[in-house]
Amino acid sequence: MSEIVGSTSILIAAEYLSNVTGGKGLMLGGFTGVPPTEIVILGAGTVGEYAARTALALGAEVKVFDSSIYRLRRLQNNLGNSRVFTSVMQPIVLNKAIVTCDVVIGAIRASHGRSPCVVMEETVSKMKPHSVVIDVSIDQGGCFETSEVTNHTNPVFRKHDVIHYCVPNIASRVPRTASYALTNIFAPILLDIGDSGGLMNTIWNNPGIREALYIYQGNVTSKDLADMFNLPFKDLELLVVSNQ
Amino acid sequence: MSEIVGSTSILIAAEYLSNVTGGKGLMLGGFTGVPPTEIVILGAGTVGEYAARTALALGAEVKVFDSSIYRLRRLQNNLGNSRVFTSVMQPIVLNKAIVTCDVVIGAIRASHGRSPCVVMEETVSKMKPHSVVIDVSIDQGGCFETSEVTNHTNPVFRKHDVIHYCVPNIASRVPRTASYALTNIFAPILLDIGDSGGLMNTIWNNPGIREALYIYQGNVTSKDLADMFNLPFKDLELLVVSNQ
Amino acid sequence: MSEIVGSTSILIAAEYLSNVTGGKGLMLGGFTGVPPTEIVILGAGTVGEYAARTALALGAEVKVFDSSIYRLRRLQNNLGNSRVFTSVMQPIVLNKAIVTCDVVIGAIRASHGRSPCVVMEETVSKMKPHSVVIDVSIDQGGCFETSEVTNHTNPVFRKHDVIHYCVPNIASRVPRTASYALTNIFAPILLDIGDSGGLMNTIWNNPGIREALYIYQGNVTSKDLADMFNLPFKDLELLVVSNQ
Amino acid sequence: MSEIVGSTSILIAAEYLSNVTGGKGLMLGGFTGVPPTEIVILGAGTVGEYAARTALALGAEVKVFDSSIYRLRRLQNNLGNSRVFTSVMQPIVLNKAIVTCDVVIGAIRASHGRSPCVVMEETVSKMKPHSVVIDVSIDQGGCFETSEVTNHTNPVFRKHDVIHYCVPNIASRVPRTASYALTNIFAPILLDIGDSGGLMNTIWNNPGIREALYIYQGNVTSKDLADMFNLPFKDLELLVVSNQ
Amino acid sequence: MSEIVGSTSILIAAEYLSNVTGGKGLMLGGFTGVPPTEIVILGAGTVGEYAARTALALGAEVKVFDSSIYRLRRLQNNLGNSRVFTSVMQPIVLNKAIVTCDVVIGAIRASHGRSPCVVMEETVSKMKPHSVVIDVSIDQGGCFETSEVTNHTNPVFRKHDVIHYCVPNIASRVPRTASYALTNIFAPILLDIGDSGGLMNTIWNNPGIREALYIYQGNVTSKDLADMFNLPFKDLELLVVSNQ
Amino acid sequence: MSEIVGSTSILIAAEYLSNVTGGKGLMLGGFTGVPPTEIVILGAGTVGEYAARTALALGAEVKVFDSSIYRLRRLQNNLGNSRVFTSVMQPIVLNKAIVTCDVVIGAIRASHGRSPCVVMEETVSKMKPHSVVIDVSIDQGGCFETSEVTNHTNPVFRKHDVIHYCVPNIASRVPRTASYALTNIFAPILLDIGDSGGLMNTIWNNPGIREALYIYQGNVTSKDLADMFNLPFKDLELLVVSNQ
Repeated sequence: MSEIVGSTSILIAAEYLSNVTGGKGLMLGGFTGVPPTEIVILGAGTVGEYAARTALALGAEVKVFDSSIYRLRRLQNNLGNSRVFTSVMQPIVLNKAIVTCDVVIGAIRASHGRSPCVVMEETVSKMKPHSVVIDVSIDQGGCFETSEVTNHTNPVFRKHDVIHYCVPNIASRVPRTASYALTNIFAPILLDIGDSGGLMNTIWNNPGIREALYIYQGNVTSKDLADMFNLPFKDLELLVVSNQ
Repeated sequence: MSEIVGSTSILIAAEYLSNVTGGKGLMLGGFTGVPPTEIVILGAGTVGEYAARTALALGAEVKVFDSSIYRLRRLQNNLGNSRVFTSVMQPIVLNKAIVTCDVVIGAIRASHGRSPCVVMEETVSKMKPHSVVIDVSIDQGGCFETSEVTNHTNPVFRKHDVIHYCVPNIASRVPRTASYALTNIFAPILLDIGDSGGLMNTIWNNPGIREALYIYQGNVTSKDLADMFNLPFKDLELLVVSNQ
Repeated sequence: MSEIVGSTSILIAAEYLSNVTGGKGLMLGGFTGVPPTEIVILGAGTVGEYAARTALALGAEVKVFDSSIYRLRRLQNNLGNSRVFTSVMQPIVLNKAIVTCDVVIGAIRASHGRSPCVVMEETVSKMKPHSVVIDVSIDQGGCFETSEVTNHTNPVFRKHDVIHYCVPNIASRVPRTASYALTNIFAPILLDIGDSGGLMNTIWNNPGIREALYIYQGNVTSKDLADMFNLPFKDLELLVVSNQ
Repeated sequence: MSEIVGSTSILIAAEYLSNVTGGKGLMLGGFTGVPPTEIVILGAGTVGEYAARTALALGAEVKVFDSSIYRLRRLQNNLGNSRVFTSVMQPIVLNKAIVTCDVVIGAIRASHGRSPCVVMEETVSKMKPHSVVIDVSIDQGGCFETSEVTNHTNPVFRKHDVIHYCVPNIASRVPRTASYALTNIFAPILLDIGDSGGLMNTIWNNPGIREALYIYQGNVTSKDLADMFNLPFKDLELLVVSNQ
Repeated sequence: MSEIVGSTSILIAAEYLSNVTGGKGLMLGGFTGVPPTEIVILGAGTVGEYAARTALALGAEVKVFDSSIYRLRRLQNNLGNSRVFTSVMQPIVLNKAIVTCDVVIGAIRASHGRSPCVVMEETVSKMKPHSVVIDVSIDQGGCFETSEVTNHTNPVFRKHDVIHYCVPNIASRVPRTASYALTNIFAPILLDIGDSGGLMNTIWNNPGIREALYIYQGNVTSKDLADMFNLPFKDLELLVVSNQ
Repeated sequence: MSEIVGSTSILIAAEYLSNVTGGKGLMLGGFTGVPPTEIVILGAGTVGEYAARTALALGAEVKVFDSSIYRLRRLQNNLGNSRVFTSVMQPIVLNKAIVTCDVVIGAIRASHGRSPCVVMEETVSKMKPHSVVIDVSIDQGGCFETSEVTNHTNPVFRKHDVIHYCVPNIASRVPRTASYALTNIFAPILLDIGDSGGLMNTIWNNPGIREALYIYQGNVTSKDLADMFNLPFKDLELLVVSNQ
């Protein structure tokens, strides 16, 4: 799913750079004799990797930032021969990159709760006019101080003359592709539930699925969700054992 | 300029495949486990080459058709290692490719007058619903029988449930990039006119520029244009000689 | 070893597509202006990966099918920049791919016992005449309903006018390369047996080797084999412990 | 056509390296941990280029020799990023390369008459046993002293324990692909003859076709052929002019 | 850090191949028509991988040797499409490669104590005059019998007319880049020590860091170091537990 | 020859960026997590192309400037898939690139007489301390205002704390490789002189060689040289005709 979101975020950026939507009138990418578009990607997870892959493919100049040197190295390895600019989140380098670029993709995922806010309003205010900010992390609160949730009807707003695209569910732009992707992931699980004799057996055998459950038989089994909505939390491990 | 048009035409296709604009809800490109988008490109000139380059970069499956084996070979060479499906305009192969694909880019340029019409209405009527046709050759009359000129305000219409994008000047979507590109081409010519002591000298020395002139000192110097608008035609070669 | 089998299977396909052996008279691969050969690969394990790598290198159009999205993603990552058509085993997509292609490589490996039969006789009967089927899984029973074991003397037979190559041990075509490969794997194990003071110690320290043993001191230690030939089975873990 | 011959020559080499045909038992190509097959290619024309491309694709180590530094540079450029060993025909380097390699492809084309003989019998006699020599230039006399014309029924012979494949028309192994390729080249010429009002007009307008004609209206119009068979030669240029 | 050392070792080799420093007068790399420089790399760890990557990038012919087929396969995968010559440490193949090459990079790391000596003085004495040996493993004792520690002031010596570069700390040639790299690794650890309430907690939670400590509160906690300098050794695990 | 100079210039830059020679202590190139070295290349001829190729290969970030959009496009095509930043010599973009980069390679060749001076002293004075300037055009007068000819004994000087390397004949660093390259070019010409019966015949038949001659039978035949040293000039064309 993150593959779709990463690739699509660059296509959205291309749309908002063109002047059909009142943008800068730039073509995302590069071609001979014209300095290429500069794209900064925050986060080197799967979203960031596919955004980088697509942006590079279009000929843009890409800079990827992440707090973890290991995630950066994995991204570099996966992108193969086309070496990209990667950097840890060193504030001076990061801010300089943001104020000179044309597009920023925010794709930082928190391990728990809210995604960290790494770009302050002050930095956004120094960006070039008509630049584009796409905050993919908006469903976890966003990683720009200026982000506010938008929707597919009114997907963008402007702040400091910077175009912000903050639709939480980017993948719903391409529902057919997204549903293929989900089917590919869920079909084997559903088949497995059928084969193994019921959901309980699958949960019992498969700690990965156990961890992915939010609600089971009316009980909230995700600690983060329970805390957020102030609901009683039940440990799924215990539920499972007691059911056997 | 054709580089811009080629690349941009694929980004436009991406937009009309997504469901924001009422399209199929597909992501242009491909990713693991989902059959990739199929794109047919008619014409292996510069527009076709850059469309192919961009589409391949996004992960789509690309088929390029052209009547000339030499143009196809040049395109193949320029695309480097990523070998693409290329074919001469064999009608059976071409029609089969068109009725099974998701996007067709028409980029056939005529050497004289109107661009040839290579896709008949009957073939278009068999295309998959919500497929996208982008007729880049529309400024020379178009290479689809179903094409009709549109504009940036109402860029598309539907025929046989196929989305047609027939805006003659695609590059004006990205005016800033386009003006860079034009400057890169015209600046040396203008400098040359200055250096060589006037336009007449530049025309005298440079047969390439001579051939590119449409009107010179009130005379129509392009045979095709003169024929089309029924105006008297003057041969620039003679004008130049007589002026010396 | 699977690397050898994967690459070699494509070279065999090339042989049977040429008309020296009564085939279609096609060159495996593609070149400018001629639609490329279509190759379907079933299974995205090491055999499938190396078959895909070799086929792509020759310029063919490759479609890889596997039931696991994770294996497909690994294959995609390993193939680097040259993105391929990958799909989960969705029956409609799979059957359509098989009836329109020129070569099918069957490389599905079962985790236990017999490899699953994924292509029915009905589908094979609809394939294009003189197409080539190479069933690499034949040593586990094959993944085509029409497969029957053959040998290096009479390696192929025809059914429904489709050429079937079902030699169980493809690697023995290139024995010198194969023995290099085996040496590279066994030499360190043998050195380790020598260093650690006997086979028993190596088995004791190394669960991986423990699992790979079929027979130990006259006892069948593979459950699958024992079941198949109706022999008494002894658990190697117990044997090892009792020997200490 | 040379594209087909170049690619096919490597597939033939793969066949004769495997032990099905009594060869060395090697897999053409390379894989991790085993020194790759070494292939020497004589001639950097189109045949040589496509042989190199295919061999590299299979993972072999490739050395290309040619007398012209410009042809080598073109080949290097066309092969893109994968830099190969290229060398002018320096005898010491060439002979050393031949006696240590597994396969030699001879693809030197003469501009007039017979192709030059660049590998002497003495060098062939020092090659490794069961090595493979494929003399693509055999239709112009061959570039190995040991070459003798063979045919598709008995395609190979052994000399000094080196397997020689000297079938003049390699492309007839893949007749269907070859006829596609020829059609792509001849169809536009035939259409042009039709459009321009007869063969004579096409010849008159097109010096390239003029030079490619061997016989015209019963007259031998190729100097080389006339000399070889001792037939009266007529200059086509004069014939054409006199016919107008 | 090994990435820096690997890349830099090739740049050093380039320096000592040129004749500024009295070398062979060769350009490291290859270009059309001239046989490329041959580089042998011993060890397929990170140093070896980055040395191979850089050498390939410059156009050299690279051979990588390692005792483990798995490390070779990882290196091959990481280098992506540009397949290299890889081989297990088969003595005949290895010695032949060394006596014919221009540069050898020794990058074998021991898991415990001294790195193994894989190239004997006899082999070195047969190398071509003015060849270059760069022993990156010199800080663990070196993998050439002829290696002796040198320093940045007198970095090389000659033995058997082979230039030996044996400076233990190659990365100090590029201190600014190296300190960036170290910061990237240490900064998160230091931040973690701060966040988790002191070094002891970090050690307690993180077995990886536990294993990397050489000295803790005045006690030698590395078995190898204690043995080497004959100092009393204390097991960190016990220290940690007793401190809780 | 320009291939050698281009590649070598980057290796020299690497040497002067390291701190062995008192440089910045940077590794030329890039690796994960550290912003890559920035290299500006002036001129998109063969020298510029090979400098770009080598710098990209090492992982640096490369910007190429040239006054001609066509040369830039050729460079882009030859570099294949790895798209680079190319720009016409737009002063604002150029100066900004120079003051922020680590290395500038000057490789602009004049068609007649002196190479144009494109970087003023003022711009050099704003470069980062310890940056490296390599003026390959120094043999035609240099393209930096601050350039002064140096030699292989004292190859560099500092101005405005920028290291200038201005040795006119860079290729003499790698004389063995350079002489190979020269041999590859001159050997066919010498053979041709022998075959065609003397130098005069070769000159007569070959306008390319005619244009490359500086002195013939005691006469200066190069207009530029004659002007520079105030010597009588003789037109070689006339000499050749009068000799027949």
